[in-house]
Amino acid sequence: MGFWKSLFSTDAVATASRVQSGASSAIATEPRVAFSTERDLDLYELEELCDAVGWSRRPLRKVRKALQHSFLVVSMWEERGAKRRLVGFARATSDCAFNATIWDVVIHPSYQSRGYGKALMKYIIKKLRSEDISNITLFADPHVVDFYRRLGFILDPEGIKGMFWYPD
Amino acid sequence: MGFWKSLFSTDAVATASRVQSGASSAIATEPRVAFSTERDLDLYELEELCDAVGWSRRPLRKVRKALQHSFLVVSMWEERGAKRRLVGFARATSDCAFNATIWDVVIHPSYQSRGYGKALMKYIIKKLRSEDISNITLFADPHVVDFYRRLGFILDPEGIKGMFWYPD
Repeated sequence: MGFWKSLFSTDAVATASRVQSGASSAIATEPRVAFSTERDLDLYELEELCDAVGWSRRPLRKVRKALQHSFLVVSMWEERGAKRRLVGFARATSDCAFNATIWDVVIHPSYQSRGYGKALMKYIIKKLRSEDISNITLFADPHVVDFYRRLGFILDPEGIKGMFWYPD
Repeated sequence: MGFWKSLFSTDAVATASRVQSGASSAIATEPRVAFSTERDLDLYELEELCDAVGWSRRPLRKVRKALQHSFLVVSMWEERGAKRRLVGFARATSDCAFNATIWDVVIHPSYQSRGYGKALMKYIIKKLRSEDISNITLFADPHVVDFYRRLGFILDPEGIKGMFWYPD
């Protein structure tokens, strides 16, 4: 329970909602946040979330394929009674042994600056660690480098550099 | 054939050996180099190759798992008649749709500076491109950044930074 305790201690998440793991009965009307690793998401709902942060649209056929072949898919939901809303998402590719790479980390703008991104990332790290994966990597846009640094990610360790190849 | 033509034009590879794709009958005694995407490699042979470049040993159980769950595994063989020797290796993880990350690129020290690394990387890029994957990434040690740059890899594009998380 140490992980969840540490979440409850973050003032932002703890005030109006509760961040919990797993599914549970939705009898409370007070909003709360839950995680899911189901990869059979409503792709239109996911597209709406990505639209909200201004990402370019991608063919849903390819998005579906990417979710199917990701090692880990995590969605974050705000639940109010029987209603739920997708407020965060991330996924990771992996060799299931040594390395994982986290992609597409997104928190809905209305839910940013509340500790949700931190909770999402901690959830992912915990999941990957539970699979004995020790080398967790990502490619960070400049404005989120400090966010990831606060979570323990190291920039260019020992001079190792992220590099990209794109088609002409 | 444009790709292979460009390989034949590299003087290093073209002199003593021929770099070819796919399997072929091994009747020539002149050494030549062939690629394979078989993932059922002799792990002791792979370990020997990694030992030769001074990498830390890793549990073979985990190496086997990593190969099974990599999207692409490429080995590079020098063939002399019926004999063959593992001279290069690399693998990639992927979501099979958008992103791939290349790991564990290694060329045996006796075969370095002959264009083999370049040929291996071009083979991998071609394979990933044939799967319609456009975002090919890797994490480069400082001394090979220029090598990858010459292959068209871009360092920190638009300020995107590679970041790593390790367990305490």
